[in-house]
Amino acid sequence: RINGDRLWDSLMEMAKIGPGVAGGNNRQTLTDEDAQGRALFQSWCEAAGCTMGLDQMGNMFARREGTDPDALPVYVGSHLDTQPTGGKYDGVLGVLGGLEIIRSLNDLGVKTKHPIVVTNFTNEEGTRFAPAMLASGVFAGIHEQDWAYGRTDAKGKSFGDELQRIGWRGDEEVGARKMHAFFELHIEQGPILEAEDKQIGVVTHGQGLSWTQATITGKDAHTGSTPMPMRKNAGLGMARVLDAVDRIAWAHKPHAVGAAGHIEVFPNSRNVIPGKAVFTVDFRSPELSVIEDMEQKLRFEAQAICREMGLGVEFEKVGGFDPVAFDEGCVNAVRDAAERLGYSHINLISGAGHDACWINRVAPTAMVMCPCVDGLSHNEAEEISKEWATAGADVLLHAVVETAGV
Amino acid sequence: RINGDRLWDSLMEMAKIGPGVAGGNNRQTLTDEDAQGRALFQSWCEAAGCTMGLDQMGNMFARREGTDPDALPVYVGSHLDTQPTGGKYDGVLGVLGGLEIIRSLNDLGVKTKHPIVVTNFTNEEGTRFAPAMLASGVFAGIHEQDWAYGRTDAKGKSFGDELQRIGWRGDEEVGARKMHAFFELHIEQGPILEAEDKQIGVVTHGQGLSWTQATITGKDAHTGSTPMPMRKNAGLGMARVLDAVDRIAWAHKPHAVGAAGHIEVFPNSRNVIPGKAVFTVDFRSPELSVIEDMEQKLRFEAQAICREMGLGVEFEKVGGFDPVAFDEGCVNAVRDAAERLGYSHINLISGAGHDACWINRVAPTAMVMCPCVDGLSHNEAEEISKEWATAGADVLLHAVVETAGV
Ligand SMILES: NC(=O)NCCC(=O)O
Ligand SMILES: NC(=O)NCCC(=O)O
Repeated sequence: RINGDRLWDSLMEMAKIGPGVAGGNNRQTLTDEDAQGRALFQSWCEAAGCTMGLDQMGNMFARREGTDPDALPVYVGSHLDTQPTGGKYDGVLGVLGGLEIIRSLNDLGVKTKHPIVVTNFTNEEGTRFAPAMLASGVFAGIHEQDWAYGRTDAKGKSFGDELQRIGWRGDEEVGARKMHAFFELHIEQGPILEAEDKQIGVVTHGQGLSWTQATITGKDAHTGSTPMPMRKNAGLGMARVLDAVDRIAWAHKPHAVGAAGHIEVFPNSRNVIPGKAVFTVDFRSPELSVIEDMEQKLRFEAQAICREMGLGVEFEKVGGFDPVAFDEGCVNAVRDAAERLGYSHINLISGAGHDACWINRVAPTAMVMCPCVDGLSHNEAEEISKEWATAGADVLLHAVVETAGV
Repeated sequence: RINGDRLWDSLMEMAKIGPGVAGGNNRQTLTDEDAQGRALFQSWCEAAGCTMGLDQMGNMFARREGTDPDALPVYVGSHLDTQPTGGKYDGVLGVLGGLEIIRSLNDLGVKTKHPIVVTNFTNEEGTRFAPAMLASGVFAGIHEQDWAYGRTDAKGKSFGDELQRIGWRGDEEVGARKMHAFFELHIEQGPILEAEDKQIGVVTHGQGLSWTQATITGKDAHTGSTPMPMRKNAGLGMARVLDAVDRIAWAHKPHAVGAAGHIEVFPNSRNVIPGKAVFTVDFRSPELSVIEDMEQKLRFEAQAICREMGLGVEFEKVGGFDPVAFDEGCVNAVRDAAERLGYSHINLISGAGHDACWINRVAPTAMVMCPCVDGLSHNEAEEISKEWATAGADVLLHAVVETAGV
């Protein structure tokens, strides 16, 4: 079993870097705080006897040697970057849980056949640079590295420049590593485990996602002296489309979801009717056809709304991935570990996207989930218990050791 | 008659300071560009033989002496600050039109009995610091100066600090000056003069305004893993309220208007359901009871929408003024001037707020309006013709000379 107190202490220590305003974290990717978090993680890994690899996307790989020089490593990990108002566990638990299994194996003097590598993937959250899971996506061959380098944040700074600036661009070719298997421990970020009173979620599938950025164009005009019939209010058009997004998602219940988290109007002045509105619609479902259907309905309804109002509308797909089925062998390793350790468990479909969803394309992959209070995540109030974290890391340890051999 | 070419050249010269991105201007109040515009105006006034006064709100007063030492001055003017994506004429025409009448009187060697003072009021637009017409409001005793100094922009910078920083805080007590009368020339910013094919609007009234800032609170949560029924989406609540704003304004046609130009969600991340939305609703009407009715309906409907969605909502009144009836004597002076000069004219109710609306509380006041293309303002594409500007300044000259005596 892993050392739950040590894991918890490390989580709390990491949470001191890039504190939020309400008890959580703001350690967005490629900020100075991200660099500090990486340095702390590296120092811990080195103290645990690992050697650190760093690739050209800033992905970090802390390696504990195995006994068989020819065996491919078993990878574990997640991400250390957070949302602007994020929690202390989203991603971080998977990275530090991975470190904890190495520390525990050191304590027990256990050597595995396959090496074990703990990974921190860059820009999983996708807030600063869309899309989410950008660096694991390059690793898995989904995105071109040059394209990823060219992604810009709201201030126009590019991923490539910012990675260079914080000093965490490595030399290693991205995706050159081959993996025997990949396991990601993550908080559920949803309410099911808590509601079902289970300690472990055995993640069999991940739902798919589509991010469509819509740009509505009207005409900047005076809010006071422009008669109602002459207005081309892009903000009002956006409001009606946002309502349609909600209707579309509900129409596909029980499993589909939809919302817009990113919303802006221009010039954003109290007495100017917005001439432009930009927002990103996030649709998800475990079924690809449902996602495609929602996307199509969005475009159709937005076009109808905007036509009626004399507005223009354009769409750009800024992120997305298809629903995922994880590797049967790895999923079974997770379930067997939970069973062996006596933790209650159920199968889960991940509601969020994870680095594991991309890595699953290039290596046998599975995920372990632990509950989080009220299913709340992407919120500074995100909370888990030490016991939940411990159970998750225990299952990770056993699934990894089972797969890596002793 | 004034010199239309000279007026136009000055307008074009001023427009070079703080250029926009699409042919207009971004010379927001208390920016470095505002300071440059002020310095240019001051140099022109001094060249025209005026002395410059500056009060503690940064209001500028360029004085041309009269023949009677005891006579109160006739004031003219408007504002040099612009919207973030503003036009070249909104406000500027009134200030430089005032300067042009002084230049013309100099050319003609005409001395008036009352002095003439050309004024540039600080922060008329209200984009950076709400409310609009802030400094003329302090001048007229509507707002406390300390309260005005404490108004903050989106970055948290205060009006008082920024006024000091750009070096345009004067020593003169605000509102100490007494005015014989005040005249403001302004572009219509609406479509009526053009539609009616008239050269001059004789502004008899100004409609009233109410700015209500609404803050809706929900709960930040993950867009992927939070089931639809568990969401408290403040952005969606805002969208529904924005639609209600439009319905409320239409329900009070023909004269009422309503929209929100300022819209923000937090944390504004693509995969976070917004836990907070802040926006400002702008309602206007020539009738106070209509404004009050719309405000009340807004609060009632927003509360109902938010209650239904499990959201919180709070309101703050961040600006407003009652409908205005301008001074009969001054209005007649404007109408007589237009008539005498042979310009076609009609009575107008101003759709926008103006410094004249506040000054009307402390001195006999009226406004002259000229058309603008397609009624478009608060847009970089705002346009007027040299002939329209000339006619407006001609009428201003004659109304002022009539009032100031020769
Ligand atoms: N796990 C997580 O929050 N990932 C961010 C990508 C997503 O929006 O699903
Ligand atoms: N004239 C003008 O645009 N003033 C700004 C105040 C308002 O919104 O009416």
